[in-house]
Amino acid sequence: MERIKSFKQLVSHLNEMEQRKRVAVISGTDESTLYALHRGLEAGFIDVIFVGQIPDFEKHQEFLPHKANIQQFPMEDEDESAQFAVTLVREGKADFLMKGLVHTDNLLRAVLDKEKGLLPAGNILTLIAVAETAAYDKLLFFSDPAVIPVPTRKQREWQVKYTIDVCNAFGIEEPRISLIHFTEKVSEKFPCSVDYADLSQESREGKWGKAIIDGPLDVRTSVDSEAMEVKGIKSPIAGRADALIFSDLEAANAFYKTLSFFGEAKQACILCGTSCPVVVSSRGDDGESKFYSLAMAAVVGK
Amino acid sequence: MERIKSFKQLVSHLNEMEQRKRVAVISGTDESTLYALHRGLEAGFIDVIFVGQIPDFEKHQEFLPHKANIQQFPMEDEDESAQFAVTLVREGKADFLMKGLVHTDNLLRAVLDKEKGLLPAGNILTLIAVAETAAYDKLLFFSDPAVIPVPTRKQREWQVKYTIDVCNAFGIEEPRISLIHFTEKVSEKFPCSVDYADLSQESREGKWGKAIIDGPLDVRTSVDSEAMEVKGIKSPIAGRADALIFSDLEAANAFYKTLSFFGEAKQACILCGTSCPVVVSSRGDDGESKFYSLAMAAVVGK
Repeated sequence: MERIKSFKQLVSHLNEMEQRKRVAVISGTDESTLYALHRGLEAGFIDVIFVGQIPDFEKHQEFLPHKANIQQFPMEDEDESAQFAVTLVREGKADFLMKGLVHTDNLLRAVLDKEKGLLPAGNILTLIAVAETAAYDKLLFFSDPAVIPVPTRKQREWQVKYTIDVCNAFGIEEPRISLIHFTEKVSEKFPCSVDYADLSQESREGKWGKAIIDGPLDVRTSVDSEAMEVKGIKSPIAGRADALIFSDLEAANAFYKTLSFFGEAKQACILCGTSCPVVVSSRGDDGESKFYSLAMAAVVGK
Repeated sequence: MERIKSFKQLVSHLNEMEQRKRVAVISGTDESTLYALHRGLEAGFIDVIFVGQIPDFEKHQEFLPHKANIQQFPMEDEDESAQFAVTLVREGKADFLMKGLVHTDNLLRAVLDKEKGLLPAGNILTLIAVAETAAYDKLLFFSDPAVIPVPTRKQREWQVKYTIDVCNAFGIEEPRISLIHFTEKVSEKFPCSVDYADLSQESREGKWGKAIIDGPLDVRTSVDSEAMEVKGIKSPIAGRADALIFSDLEAANAFYKTLSFFGEAKQACILCGTSCPVVVSSRGDDGESKFYSLAMAAVVGK
């Protein structure tokens, strides 16, 4: 498949696939979620299963032409709704999940339930985001702006693994994954930098398959070949990273929010590690970014 | 004085002051440092004292018209040059310092020397940066993208104090200082958020004088009143922060580098805590940003 370099190309790709993914949305009654779902239905890459609170279709007549692609399971209780949606996925009746007005806590309780949830034993839950900006001529993936405060070595490995999977789903055959630190120096004082050196070594030895993993590098040199040259840094990332793995949540979140405001980025994100992607937008996200997250989940999910 | 809202206004302000600051530059022979110094001389707000390696004025004839405003102290040894420059400041013969090709380690060794250095006992050394971007209609100060890995409560207090001083020097009488975390929730799990809550309380009680200090807040809500409203957050920052204090160096550095590349920001920075500002640009900085750092030091220094 051709490499997807923008959200526009992502949507075109999903169109061409002519394959519908079934999204179970929990209490998806807010305007921005409905906007995203409607665009997904129009583009033809999703069927929608409303669980929990059901939107008022009298008010949202734009959904009427898509009646055949919509199911409804009205429920009052938040936990019950979340569990029901999770069960749909477990039973193969839904392909992925999307959070509407249900609280994240209730949703995650159902998703992370050891017996009836969606996180295979040993996996970790982490968020992978993707940004489209004017300054960079391809999509830039990054992790983790919301879930894991300070990843352990093991958690970093999972983040790298999921990131490779997501990049592959976007048609990036050999993703360049840059491990972010404020400097390119390795020091015992900064445990992430030691993890990064190990991971880079493993990548050079071929242990990560078709992927170029290198670090520590800073944000700028990861995406700017000129800056890398000026600083005299030699790295196979070559200022052309496809993905950035951050040292901690604070840094990744600062990146995410800075890109959105100062970089005027379009962004999407999904929870990974679970048996299917989970779209968990935050209060601040607009309909467009929820639509892109939906599209991201549709292309990443099996 | 009128509030300085851009680097252009900063330079105009320095012009109008008609006051020259004496900068001791250590081995300032690289192109970008010379560019910055020449612009400062042209603008008329600095006298330059070259210490250590001296530029080849045959090659840099543009300095000839400024001969009267230039002194030279050629020296071979890096440590000796740094110590000499520090002594110039201690003896009142220079107003602030600028790093040229001298290594940061050598420079800091002289600056931080307990007996002959420039850091008063009890003070801390931290970097304050300032950015001008298209997305925000005023300058945005932030700390600390380079020096303190994870500030202690005490170090955060100093960062806030120095930030207020710097803002005041830019004519911002009552700076709004936002304390950055990935969420606005306070939790024992994230010690910075507890420090932030304390500092915010102190600010409300008037212990910080004319300054509005509030947090935890994330990057976006700090600078975007609309996002703050959408999220239903009440804060006296009101999406109009003058300065951001980050939880740690990783986050601040990610912010710095992301702004520079994706936000196409013009940026400047100085070391604070020392008895005079110290301009320590990094290898990646271009002449323009060194010039702005020079201007920042000139306005902040006494």
